[in-house]
Amino acid sequence: MAAKNFQKKSIAAHKKHKGKLSVEATMPITNTDELSLAYTPGVAGPALAIAADKSRARELTTAKRTVAIVSDGSAVLGLGDIGPEAALPIMEGKAALLKRFAGIDGFPIVLNTQSVEEIVAAVKAISPTFGAINLEDISAPRCFEVEARLIEELDIPVMHDDQHGTAIIILAALINALTVAKKRADTVRVVINGVGAAGVATTKLLLAYGIGDITLVDSTGIIHPKRENLTPLKEELASQTNERGLSGSLADALSGADVFIGLSRGNILTKEMIEAMAPEPAIFALANPTPEIDPALAKRAGARVVATGRSDYPNQINNSLAFPGIYKGLIEGNVPHVTDGIKIAAALALARTVKKPTAEKIVPGAFEEGVAKTVARAVRRAG
Amino acid sequence: MAAKNFQKKSIAAHKKHKGKLSVEATMPITNTDELSLAYTPGVAGPALAIAADKSRARELTTAKRTVAIVSDGSAVLGLGDIGPEAALPIMEGKAALLKRFAGIDGFPIVLNTQSVEEIVAAVKAISPTFGAINLEDISAPRCFEVEARLIEELDIPVMHDDQHGTAIIILAALINALTVAKKRADTVRVVINGVGAAGVATTKLLLAYGIGDITLVDSTGIIHPKRENLTPLKEELASQTNERGLSGSLADALSGADVFIGLSRGNILTKEMIEAMAPEPAIFALANPTPEIDPALAKRAGARVVATGRSDYPNQINNSLAFPGIYKGLIEGNVPHVTDGIKIAAALALARTVKKPTAEKIVPGAFEEGVAKTVARAVRRAG
Repeated sequence: MAAKNFQKKSIAAHKKHKGKLSVEATMPITNTDELSLAYTPGVAGPALAIAADKSRARELTTAKRTVAIVSDGSAVLGLGDIGPEAALPIMEGKAALLKRFAGIDGFPIVLNTQSVEEIVAAVKAISPTFGAINLEDISAPRCFEVEARLIEELDIPVMHDDQHGTAIIILAALINALTVAKKRADTVRVVINGVGAAGVATTKLLLAYGIGDITLVDSTGIIHPKRENLTPLKEELASQTNERGLSGSLADALSGADVFIGLSRGNILTKEMIEAMAPEPAIFALANPTPEIDPALAKRAGARVVATGRSDYPNQINNSLAFPGIYKGLIEGNVPHVTDGIKIAAALALARTVKKPTAEKIVPGAFEEGVAKTVARAVRRAG
Repeated sequence: MAAKNFQKKSIAAHKKHKGKLSVEATMPITNTDELSLAYTPGVAGPALAIAADKSRARELTTAKRTVAIVSDGSAVLGLGDIGPEAALPIMEGKAALLKRFAGIDGFPIVLNTQSVEEIVAAVKAISPTFGAINLEDISAPRCFEVEARLIEELDIPVMHDDQHGTAIIILAALINALTVAKKRADTVRVVINGVGAAGVATTKLLLAYGIGDITLVDSTGIIHPKRENLTPLKEELASQTNERGLSGSLADALSGADVFIGLSRGNILTKEMIEAMAPEPAIFALANPTPEIDPALAKRAGARVVATGRSDYPNQINNSLAFPGIYKGLIEGNVPHVTDGIKIAAALALARTVKKPTAEKIVPGAFEEGVAKTVARAVRRAG
């Protein structure tokens, strides 16, 4: 109900402001001399300077320091394939958050194609305009190919936020949850439910961080090398995870596990499953708007730390904590590629913004000062 | 020298401001409730409203009311093919002028391809983002095909400003110059020197307005149907112009003519050529930075009205007088196509902003209040 009310109020607010963004002129243009500096004939100066050295576009233009927030509208929030125009409010929201939390410019670009080839071609064509590409709400498995191709073919950073922004804030939360439960990354047992964009990226980042014991579960059950009809991606993941050689259901995976990370759908976790986990387990019930289990019930079942994707419970895990600082670091540090090292550095920096992690606070609040700045510094240093 | 000084100062100003634009968030995001309206979960409201009715994107997003200022960097100012990144300062300048003079949002999009097919594909792909497409600084003859294809294939307005913005302000200036000299559009003899993007569009618009006697001159001389090796475009123009069947040089074309419109290169007009024109001729010496003839010399040779492209002489003919109001009208009136009727209405409105045209004032000044508003109203009514 709260969400429905917010939706009505949100429509009214968007109507009032005619959207969430405004492109402002930063140089004064009030007389002929100022016009001659900002436009002809003076503008030939910066144009020729960039023609002689392309890298000066970052210094002399706004666009080249702007993040393109690119979507085909195929996997928008929990709403699905609603099309490019309908995706615009979400993309404008990301641009608004970029400015609000990190002082970085962003502009939405929505595409009227869902073809991998055409998305790659369009983003490549417009890439001289921008300083970084944020891919957003593109459905799996196309999102993997689109991102891989663009990383390969562009010399500006490209990141699919639904994958890596989510993975980074989950790793940050996990680092602090382990501190709270006094457990170690190299021995902890993690179960990830959901092998879409966020699940895949989280798995890979946790592996890169050194968490060796990860079990993946999709709608068919535990992923293991002998399961039939695995996609090539799941085959690859099967070979990198599940070191215990488990098979069976989500309940089988959770027996004795330390951490549950839910990235699929709500109401699939039971009290009994949590009771069968290792002592003091961490439950990240991140399905939205309905978590995998009611947080209060998870607590009663013995969970030490519970996190959700919602703002009305403690420990909201939301990638709006991660992406503003990440792009601030990428743009300001002129970082060409987002490496695993950068992602891990960002997660560690995010984790450190919580001075004393407790069961009720493993991630910073959405409006805590300095979070984006801390993350940006870590990204610049690792980049 | 003045231009060189402006270029140095311009580089410093662009560096100071890190470009000329800023993407600002217009909805407040200072607490959890506001975040829930601008972003999740509230943003699902406007997203679903647009999914149900695409046209609501104009009401609920900024992007869909934003003008994309698109260039491939192939014909930038008088600088030529300097590439997409180097074109950015000019495109940002246009976006800044759009906001400054018309209150309309614009954002640059520069492309790393000069292939007609790839430009058309990229602009089509990103078109759901924007409310209008302003093509800019794309070299002829590709600019004609790119524009024609996009007008045909998109349902938002597309205009190549180097063509039509220039043609519109020239027609406005011509209307007032004819008033000053007490001459009539249907009998006046016009010579246009230069058959690039601006020359072609100006010819077509003057013909549509009812100016029947137009002679075109390119670097080879007067264009007439029997000239050898005409391009298909010039063949078409030859059949629509030159009703006197002239051939020969620019001097031959000007003998007895009432109006000279220069859209090519400087220093090609002589005192003698003007003396051989009809009484009280109008000279639009628009080559930049060096006009076709020194305005003082043109006056001494008998010109009644002299206009240039420069701000340091009277009667500066610059498309910055036209495009802000045109796009304001297109966006606010939700006009799908830029017709000849719209262009003529815009030119007439621009001409009317000069209450009493004189030889020293046939166009409004760059900073006169209300010009864009007047043009926008005319565009909306004609659209």
